[in-house]
Amino acid sequence: MRTLQVALAERSYPIHIGAGLLDTFPLAEQVRGNQVMIVTNETIAPLYLERLTPHFSGCQCDTLVLPDGEAFKTLETLESIFDALMAKRHSRTTTLVALGGGVIGDMVGFAAACYQRGVDFIQVPTTLLAQVDSSVGGKTAVNHPRGKNMIGAFHQPRLVLIDTDVLASLPQRELAAGYAEVIKYGLIRDPDFYHWLETNNERLLSRDTEALSEAIYRSCDNKAQVVADDETEQGNRALLNLGHTFGHAIETATGYSKWLHGEAVAVGMLMAVNMSVRLGWVDAGLEAGLADVLAQWQLPVATPAGMTPDQFMDLMSLDKKVQNGQLRLVLLRQLGEAVVTADYDAGALRQTLEAFCGT
Amino acid sequence: MRTLQVALAERSYPIHIGAGLLDTFPLAEQVRGNQVMIVTNETIAPLYLERLTPHFSGCQCDTLVLPDGEAFKTLETLESIFDALMAKRHSRTTTLVALGGGVIGDMVGFAAACYQRGVDFIQVPTTLLAQVDSSVGGKTAVNHPRGKNMIGAFHQPRLVLIDTDVLASLPQRELAAGYAEVIKYGLIRDPDFYHWLETNNERLLSRDTEALSEAIYRSCDNKAQVVADDETEQGNRALLNLGHTFGHAIETATGYSKWLHGEAVAVGMLMAVNMSVRLGWVDAGLEAGLADVLAQWQLPVATPAGMTPDQFMDLMSLDKKVQNGQLRLVLLRQLGEAVVTADYDAGALRQTLEAFCGT
Repeated sequence: MRTLQVALAERSYPIHIGAGLLDTFPLAEQVRGNQVMIVTNETIAPLYLERLTPHFSGCQCDTLVLPDGEAFKTLETLESIFDALMAKRHSRTTTLVALGGGVIGDMVGFAAACYQRGVDFIQVPTTLLAQVDSSVGGKTAVNHPRGKNMIGAFHQPRLVLIDTDVLASLPQRELAAGYAEVIKYGLIRDPDFYHWLETNNERLLSRDTEALSEAIYRSCDNKAQVVADDETEQGNRALLNLGHTFGHAIETATGYSKWLHGEAVAVGMLMAVNMSVRLGWVDAGLEAGLADVLAQWQLPVATPAGMTPDQFMDLMSLDKKVQNGQLRLVLLRQLGEAVVTADYDAGALRQTLEAFCGT
Repeated sequence: MRTLQVALAERSYPIHIGAGLLDTFPLAEQVRGNQVMIVTNETIAPLYLERLTPHFSGCQCDTLVLPDGEAFKTLETLESIFDALMAKRHSRTTTLVALGGGVIGDMVGFAAACYQRGVDFIQVPTTLLAQVDSSVGGKTAVNHPRGKNMIGAFHQPRLVLIDTDVLASLPQRELAAGYAEVIKYGLIRDPDFYHWLETNNERLLSRDTEALSEAIYRSCDNKAQVVADDETEQGNRALLNLGHTFGHAIETATGYSKWLHGEAVAVGMLMAVNMSVRLGWVDAGLEAGLADVLAQWQLPVATPAGMTPDQFMDLMSLDKKVQNGQLRLVLLRQLGEAVVTADYDAGALRQTLEAFCGT
């Protein structure tokens, strides 16, 4: 087991990474009260729920199984979590356990932020995307029909428990979606990691457990550093959003039902790099290399059929990074150096949108 | 104008109290972005909305008018606030203005806490209850059908603007409901204030503006001190809940539609004092005196017809002050000294419930 720390003063917490932790980690010791509710989804429950419940045999342990998918990351589903907590009389000393991917983690974290104005929660991410990104850092949310992650809170978990064995059961499409966020860390702040990923691409594609573990560790290490430096995104944390402004527009346009988040981020990153090339900030070779890697992982390198530049502009105008009417974008100054800026040539943005929409 | 400060480091903010502030206070200076949404209700909108909007003529100012009443303090109404913000494309630099009583303040504050993971908000309380209690301290929430204020957040406003003139339009029943919370501060921590209230009861009942202003100032001063000492209710802030455990049970049992919050708190405080008398902690004279004052203000001194001790016990078992299955109650050790404790004779609680339920 390897452990990283997210350093946030009294809200600091560990990320434990290792094979088999679902069974072996002493989870019950992390629970401060005598009530636990494990929230998971229909896909994950049959695989892992029964391995988690025995940890909590010493206290009231309830379980809630939600439908699977980003389309259910809504206020309505959130309400069903509150209903279950109230029905089972969970008090302010309860602990919620989020067992699942990013959707479960974001939603259960938000429920924990709001239930009785805040209760403990533990992240047990079961997808690569959740392990390397969404489970770390305390961003919680549900979607609004008009915009992704628009309703939420900053609420840090008590710990993040990453069992690398669970990736064995993950469909290739889900693994690839998570891999997009792994590449992101290399692009925005860790060129050594980016080159390591290039070198080890074959091992990672073939699910070499040692390589995947290392990729998870280095991703979490990057994320933990960014979050410790800027918990509530007053500044540099926004850099983690490389590709996300374009990606969120795609997710919203497709009703949160056709594209996985990581898939939308993949093409979004490529768009951000494409625009950075047009601005003369990075070399076209970087874009070509990125497109090549994404294609090898069978990640999308084009926007959904039918989306137009105007639709992108409309949806992106609701992005959380908009300030006083100005859309700020995360772009690359060079490999490993991202900036969030509203100071770009609007023509370059238009050209990128037109190139990807094929107009 | 008199000003108090809620001292919470980088979340500190002022409470301004004075006659006519709705027109004269430079509110626009408090807005950091270029968007404002004023949220109010059907009762308040015709009275005060048009006096507030001119402040924000220099920026995008939208308004939202919600139905009036505690029964609408729900996740569903909250969603309508998010819908309006998204429809009008409000960004993370927007400011929400809560113009109304406690329901509006709690709900708009919670919307501000969650919209894009947190935006600014300003409290403009228009009831005595909101002015002396709910607008100060950052507790925001909506109700759950099974329990009052069960879904919420701690989110401090940028400022609280109390125009004492608005009380002139307040129905007597609403004024009395707010007065219950005023008395509370005397009971739990300020015996001098309690005696001042006794001495000035006639002036207050007849709406003497100077006396009411003083009562508001001293109430806010007490509240600000408690909040500064314990923002997220890890300890002494719970003392502000004197009478609220009984009161919330009444509000929940009556579907949040028949009793005003302050009315439920009034009889709840009397029940807490009654129980404190049974425990031998305070003199029966204090209870008699309190009952007398409440009656003069035409506040309830008995529980709703039909409520039973068992129903109280059932509803109170969901109180936020429950810890590991134990119900903690706020009781009086003496006038001006409250405690929150699970260490009480359960028989005394039962006797109090039976006495008030007439069983």
